[in-house]
Amino acid sequence: MKIRRSERLIDLTDYLENHPYQLVPLTFFAQRYQSAKSSISEDITIIKTVFKKRDLGIVETLPGAGGGVRFMPAISRELAAVYLENLREKLADPQRILPGGYLYLSDILGQPNLLRQVGRLIATQYAGQEIDAIMTMATKGIPIAQSAAYYLNVPYVIVRRESKITEGPTLSVNYESGSVHRIEKMELSKRSLPTGSRIIAVDDFMKGGGTISGMHNLVEEFSGKLVGVTVLVESNDARVDQAEKRFPATSLLNLQAISVEQQKLNIELGNYLEVTDFNPEKQIIE
Amino acid sequence: MKIRRSERLIDLTDYLENHPYQLVPLTFFAQRYQSAKSSISEDITIIKTVFKKRDLGIVETLPGAGGGVRFMPAISRELAAVYLENLREKLADPQRILPGGYLYLSDILGQPNLLRQVGRLIATQYAGQEIDAIMTMATKGIPIAQSAAYYLNVPYVIVRRESKITEGPTLSVNYESGSVHRIEKMELSKRSLPTGSRIIAVDDFMKGGGTISGMHNLVEEFSGKLVGVTVLVESNDARVDQAEKRFPATSLLNLQAISVEQQKLNIELGNYLEVTDFNPEKQIIE
Repeated sequence: MKIRRSERLIDLTDYLENHPYQLVPLTFFAQRYQSAKSSISEDITIIKTVFKKRDLGIVETLPGAGGGVRFMPAISRELAAVYLENLREKLADPQRILPGGYLYLSDILGQPNLLRQVGRLIATQYAGQEIDAIMTMATKGIPIAQSAAYYLNVPYVIVRRESKITEGPTLSVNYESGSVHRIEKMELSKRSLPTGSRIIAVDDFMKGGGTISGMHNLVEEFSGKLVGVTVLVESNDARVDQAEKRFPATSLLNLQAISVEQQKLNIELGNYLEVTDFNPEKQIIE
Repeated sequence: MKIRRSERLIDLTDYLENHPYQLVPLTFFAQRYQSAKSSISEDITIIKTVFKKRDLGIVETLPGAGGGVRFMPAISRELAAVYLENLREKLADPQRILPGGYLYLSDILGQPNLLRQVGRLIATQYAGQEIDAIMTMATKGIPIAQSAAYYLNVPYVIVRRESKITEGPTLSVNYESGSVHRIEKMELSKRSLPTGSRIIAVDDFMKGGGTISGMHNLVEEFSGKLVGVTVLVESNDARVDQAEKRFPATSLLNLQAISVEQQKLNIELGNYLEVTDFNPEKQIIE
């Protein structure tokens, strides 16, 4: 029994959404729908156009024997700006002010609709780039890492301050915690990361950058390469010049000032929009 | 300019996928596509049929003024069995055996494609039920909680062994850790959970159930109601009879036997398929 185009378009859209960055040969869909490859090509063309028009992401077709169709969940600068402003408004609430100039973020990090936006933003920044894994620090970096992993279709690994018996052998490095100005230790399960991996590091809050610097060292211990760092909120509080940092970080939001006494905070957009290339087709690695 | 059905079907599919459990009035789509509500109704009917046929989830339309369309990401028993067997095979690797009869799970918990399956399974178990939040224990329960939160469209909260300065005021309870047989403390940020919430608790590994019991107490401290417990792997190792437990847990997988000496393990499906009702329409709360 023949499968109609409407059914193919619906299932194709669902399939691509749930398989980002996976190159799927057209023959796979031709068999799935018992339809001619030419019909599938027409379907893809329609989907590609609608995804672009509706800002749902980029559907690209790679020609040739090893070719197929691939979905990149990258959004436009306009939509990214909307997501960022939405996050900024949510965080600009004085009730979030915590002692020590910290921001209460836990609720944000547990809301799936916001995490989808954060993941989409990070995935857009690194769209089409060669990335093997995402690294983050327990505990509050995990939601950020998972949201990005969903859209980039790469695994993420969790660095911890104290290793657990359920981690197996670990590799550890020391780092200076910017928050408490003392040397701490961070560990990662040895088998969790292949040596030579290309890594992006993500975290919820950066103040001074000690944690990021530690993750940088850890990546090097695994003979890997740190290709990017993105944080949800960067705090200017510690007054560390980006240039002085070992690795420049991309921030979605920037905590410019926070006063526990006056219960005031000033949170602006970070440097995300400046550093992000919104034409990922350019950077695709075939 | 008129928007064609093909475009509507693609965008509708994308929209529903990204807004699970959100009741969307047809007028929203009528405006979005400058199309008649009757056309939108026809689109929904097509999508509903394809989603059911392809096992992509349940699209339901609620009639009346307060009505609209809602997507429930629930899968069939057949697809659930495929997901579970896939997970079982991945975990049944003797190299995962860790001292103390633990399983190395960290890699599994960082793979987005597997987390999608876990999330879909948990969301199917609780499909259509009234749930306000998902609770989990740091660190390795977090990926499970987030994967389920994505499909159930509810926030998740993270219980921690030691509170952080970035959590604000916390509520804490003591619990007996099944693994090390000593009394430990677990804390949850006070503002992270409204009192009277209906909660499901999830975790990666249950051995004895001390952590779950602790989360049960914590839910009661928040005057909430624990309506379900689901774990990725339950270990028979501790020989705790389900009946003896304060709260019966649903397990996706069951670690029946593990021998560190012989480097052998026997992992089977848990009780998920027995306890899950695969007809969520029945339990929908209007």
